[in-house]
Amino acid sequence: MQLGMIGLGRMGANIVRRVVKDGHECVVYDRNRDAVKAMAGEDNVTGVSSYAELAEKLSKPRVVWVMVPAGDITTGVIEELAKTLDTNDIVIDGGNSYYRDDIKHAQMLADKGIRLLDCGTSGGVWGRERGYCLMVGGDDDAFNHAEPIFATVAPGVDAAPRTPGRDGEVAQSEKGYLHCGSAGSGHFVKMVHNGIEYGMMASLAEGLNILRNADIGTRIQKGQGDAETAPLANPEYYQYNINIPDVTELWRRGSVIESWLLDLTAIALHQAPDLKEFAGHVSDSGEGRWTCIAAIDEGVPAPVLTSALYSRFASRRLDEFADKALSAMRKQFGGHDEKASG
Amino acid sequence: MQLGMIGLGRMGANIVRRVVKDGHECVVYDRNRDAVKAMAGEDNVTGVSSYAELAEKLSKPRVVWVMVPAGDITTGVIEELAKTLDTNDIVIDGGNSYYRDDIKHAQMLADKGIRLLDCGTSGGVWGRERGYCLMVGGDDDAFNHAEPIFATVAPGVDAAPRTPGRDGEVAQSEKGYLHCGSAGSGHFVKMVHNGIEYGMMASLAEGLNILRNADIGTRIQKGQGDAETAPLANPEYYQYNINIPDVTELWRRGSVIESWLLDLTAIALHQAPDLKEFAGHVSDSGEGRWTCIAAIDEGVPAPVLTSALYSRFASRRLDEFADKALSAMRKQFGGHDEKASG
Amino acid sequence: MQLGMIGLGRMGANIVRRVVKDGHECVVYDRNRDAVKAMAGEDNVTGVSSYAELAEKLSKPRVVWVMVPAGDITTGVIEELAKTLDTNDIVIDGGNSYYRDDIKHAQMLADKGIRLLDCGTSGGVWGRERGYCLMVGGDDDAFNHAEPIFATVAPGVDAAPRTPGRDGEVAQSEKGYLHCGSAGSGHFVKMVHNGIEYGMMASLAEGLNILRNADIGTRIQKGQGDAETAPLANPEYYQYNINIPDVTELWRRGSVIESWLLDLTAIALHQAPDLKEFAGHVSDSGEGRWTCIAAIDEGVPAPVLTSALYSRFASRRLDEFADKALSAMRKQFGGHDEKASG
Amino acid sequence: MQLGMIGLGRMGANIVRRVVKDGHECVVYDRNRDAVKAMAGEDNVTGVSSYAELAEKLSKPRVVWVMVPAGDITTGVIEELAKTLDTNDIVIDGGNSYYRDDIKHAQMLADKGIRLLDCGTSGGVWGRERGYCLMVGGDDDAFNHAEPIFATVAPGVDAAPRTPGRDGEVAQSEKGYLHCGSAGSGHFVKMVHNGIEYGMMASLAEGLNILRNADIGTRIQKGQGDAETAPLANPEYYQYNINIPDVTELWRRGSVIESWLLDLTAIALHQAPDLKEFAGHVSDSGEGRWTCIAAIDEGVPAPVLTSALYSRFASRRLDEFADKALSAMRKQFGGHDEKASG
Repeated sequence: MQLGMIGLGRMGANIVRRVVKDGHECVVYDRNRDAVKAMAGEDNVTGVSSYAELAEKLSKPRVVWVMVPAGDITTGVIEELAKTLDTNDIVIDGGNSYYRDDIKHAQMLADKGIRLLDCGTSGGVWGRERGYCLMVGGDDDAFNHAEPIFATVAPGVDAAPRTPGRDGEVAQSEKGYLHCGSAGSGHFVKMVHNGIEYGMMASLAEGLNILRNADIGTRIQKGQGDAETAPLANPEYYQYNINIPDVTELWRRGSVIESWLLDLTAIALHQAPDLKEFAGHVSDSGEGRWTCIAAIDEGVPAPVLTSALYSRFASRRLDEFADKALSAMRKQFGGHDEKASG
Repeated sequence: MQLGMIGLGRMGANIVRRVVKDGHECVVYDRNRDAVKAMAGEDNVTGVSSYAELAEKLSKPRVVWVMVPAGDITTGVIEELAKTLDTNDIVIDGGNSYYRDDIKHAQMLADKGIRLLDCGTSGGVWGRERGYCLMVGGDDDAFNHAEPIFATVAPGVDAAPRTPGRDGEVAQSEKGYLHCGSAGSGHFVKMVHNGIEYGMMASLAEGLNILRNADIGTRIQKGQGDAETAPLANPEYYQYNINIPDVTELWRRGSVIESWLLDLTAIALHQAPDLKEFAGHVSDSGEGRWTCIAAIDEGVPAPVLTSALYSRFASRRLDEFADKALSAMRKQFGGHDEKASG
Repeated sequence: MQLGMIGLGRMGANIVRRVVKDGHECVVYDRNRDAVKAMAGEDNVTGVSSYAELAEKLSKPRVVWVMVPAGDITTGVIEELAKTLDTNDIVIDGGNSYYRDDIKHAQMLADKGIRLLDCGTSGGVWGRERGYCLMVGGDDDAFNHAEPIFATVAPGVDAAPRTPGRDGEVAQSEKGYLHCGSAGSGHFVKMVHNGIEYGMMASLAEGLNILRNADIGTRIQKGQGDAETAPLANPEYYQYNINIPDVTELWRRGSVIESWLLDLTAIALHQAPDLKEFAGHVSDSGEGRWTCIAAIDEGVPAPVLTSALYSRFASRRLDEFADKALSAMRKQFGGHDEKASG
Repeated sequence: MQLGMIGLGRMGANIVRRVVKDGHECVVYDRNRDAVKAMAGEDNVTGVSSYAELAEKLSKPRVVWVMVPAGDITTGVIEELAKTLDTNDIVIDGGNSYYRDDIKHAQMLADKGIRLLDCGTSGGVWGRERGYCLMVGGDDDAFNHAEPIFATVAPGVDAAPRTPGRDGEVAQSEKGYLHCGSAGSGHFVKMVHNGIEYGMMASLAEGLNILRNADIGTRIQKGQGDAETAPLANPEYYQYNINIPDVTELWRRGSVIESWLLDLTAIALHQAPDLKEFAGHVSDSGEGRWTCIAAIDEGVPAPVLTSALYSRFASRRLDEFADKALSAMRKQFGGHDEKASG
């Protein structure tokens, strides 16, 4: 079938490549004309230079995948695109949109008879090869119409051994995509997925930091602390120089924490055991925040996911005034001056 | 080669089976004679009824794997066993011992010329089939002597694709076992592994709970709160009935959080979507606690791992007095009575 | 001056009593006519039975304090009230409104030339005697006009020793009320105040729980744990029976944690050392949640305040599915059955 | 009565001054002779230059207060001092010792018939004027003998209004000192006190940081985020410039969070609203760590107190390797480069 693609960044371009490789036809647009030119030469790919041209080249009901940054940019693209589309056409928002925006966008499009599918897309730069895990929300009929595209973009059942007990016909979820429910549900599930991702990443990162400092007893003398600093009571227990790249490699086989994130960590540490190229300023891109806000709204505890989020904020020194306030209080009640170094 | 095994619980028995399957010979002891009888009939397995008999049946330097509960029981077994061993014999503590105990045990055995290898063993009930991930601490020579056993018990390099960049000769860590350093380092690394495991498990669990409550807007009326309870400001955003077993199955392919723990969660939820058989009282078995204590001693933050640990404590209602104190304060300053239900 | 009061619950009634005691005149309304009757007999208090009558009895520009539950009820009252007010009249929202609602309400009222002052009001049941700490947002002129009321309701400078360095003229903040900024700023500051309150309360509660369990070594035998439970390694360090009511009383004099919350805790524990009347289901009433959402929106870490919030959620067992998921995972990988009791 | 004092730092010297002012007699020693000279001239103060001279000048049973840094220094002083003392003499350890050390010290001294009282001492630089809150552990008879000293050093009942319900005879705890139980219990209670202090301080600091960033909507454009950074969805809600010194002053009267720590914060912010003199590297001095370790050992959740501790670690950048690991993972799965600034 035909798919329109708006946005030829890394993700958009790789999705197009998976789609055409499977025999579908893509009509592609990007506001950067060079990006369009770069893909237009490939098999089954047609480049266009406007939304109008895109609409013209697609047979109805049109299916257009929007893969642009979340927020105002996505809203703008959808609004603009809607002007060229007709009743029953389908817009897939495959970006990292806030699920609440999906609800608004779906309503806006519904007013024109256009249908929105929100599609959380996981897989990063590896997705072209591994396939993308797709979490889809929206109208049933629209989902059914677009399903062949999702099946192509997703990894497929062979990407993992079947879960014991899941025999016979292969379920949708086993193919790597899932219609999760009404508008916004796809991005809701993707949001929680990323929240979990933050937690898992932080779990690994904290653990590795504990291993990294397992030699602290060789660096700090027993009882060296003063009234300002806790002395290390038991340096004899912290005398280890752990080879962290080896440990992450080790855990990849037979351990309880086998995971793709561990695989990636092992790659990164094999390339650079000290991770010297990084400063440790960790960005966050929305879903982690929204997951925690959802937990708070629902009234369910999410201490691990929220701690992971806050650690990212702290990595960017956004707690500076709080820390200064602590030092100020300590000076007031105890006359403690700050120490030059931690 | 020959291996003595003390402790024929699930883990001990399965390790013996992996070892003999690979052509080694095992002499096995358990204080439960039935456990010994049950295995004694198997190929290459000899049952014994005392430490003395165990020592007699093994050629020197003997290698004896101790697989019994951590703490006083392990200490008792090692002390007793030491009486029947000779200089250069090797004791492998494969249980969940605190690494600080290893340091004591190693010193105690060293006084008799016996060598301790502490061996953190991950793999659970699946280890017999998948192999066990082994984290080993202790003397170099002792490790080298016992290495064939570790190689047999571990999963081997084929258990996972090689990490990109790791070409040529297969490293020890790639085979699924690693000599991590001096006495205690094996259990130290295993401890941190389990700490990470707690964090990853909690990440998944919290995320699933957020999905589970994505329908809260259908259960709570807008603005229904009173002075005692926060009203749900935006029920329109929480109208989803997410199929959680499907979602966990979905994430197994192509998502960033692919992991063995996710695989297991998908199994459990496929078997029982509501997890009704569980009350949600989550045990903790030492390593999670010790990991957090190590973080505190080292002075490094571990908010995610510690939150995961505390959630387990809370699941067992160990925060009851704290909660009562909060209610008491609320009553004092605001005249708030506790609500009948949360 | 004259003040209209809508809402004669505990807070509203007590504020009226402070206001009239200081010589001002109050016109009071409550949808519960008995509440109006109960106050109408008091000096300087006039009861009315409708918003129209309220408007009629107040000279312009009218000042009407709304003290009703936050959310839809407050919105409804303000909308209804606005119909009877005129340009330049002032509405004070003294409830626990979300500051974002203030912004909406202020805009809505501004369309009619009416001015909103949002007024975060702290003090609880003790406010009548101690005075209320008032955090006010909104228009400068409106604030200036209503200031005598705020000065009366607030505790006044004598409620605490002046801060060293603050000599000479008494600042607004020293009198116990503050014009914090534009619409919503009052409730924003009150929101953060309550967020801090949650954190301080939890700090005390957690600490008392640690004292409460300082005898755990007398209840749990050393090494009594099994593969499912961490044994207590060092029961000799947990042999204390701490008299917690005495400790909270003690800390009230000379300690760093002297605080009103500690005073209240000491009262509660003196009345009932075991706090047996409480089940430990701790409500939360909005501000704690909103504070954490503000932290997330701003991108600043608030791990302590958020942990305090999540503990309240957990006290109401809202983490149940997460806990079940943990038990299910443990069963899958380790064959662990849940223990009957924690 | 007579009191020996070893250690004339700020705390030791101020305690001596409270003691002699009340008519007692002090014999003082410090390894820094100048410190001794500086005090020796004061009324009722006798300076000595050795432990032997100290012992000689005190009548039996001697009472010697040791006020030196915790850890090896305190242990060394107690060991040395014990050589010059006799049966029934009393050593008060008033420093910040780990309560586990008290248990060891008490046993060591008991072997010589000398009695240890461990005395947690709160009050900081303000204690000389306010009195010190004293938490005492150890032998009953020893406590009773030394009680007049504790009564003098403590603030006394008048330091706070009596708790409603506490009428009639003034209890020990109301005077500002308390015999908490056996050896170590005093420092155990002091440890938890400081743990609570960490939590309260962090509660205030986090809240102030949220106020500080209430203007973030004026600094960040709506939707300005990119794929790497969460955009601020609702800048219209973060337009406030809050005067934080005024807010802390305000809260001192009538609010729920009235506290001495708030008083001190108000002082600090009045002196320097931007706290520019501080870098925000916050030390921790033992008790916060030990409190969290106690919580873990006891198996009770302490997420707030532990988060407060970890924030201090993070303020000293001790999470650097963890942050780098997060950036490395993000680069691996998403091709994300670190942003130059947070």
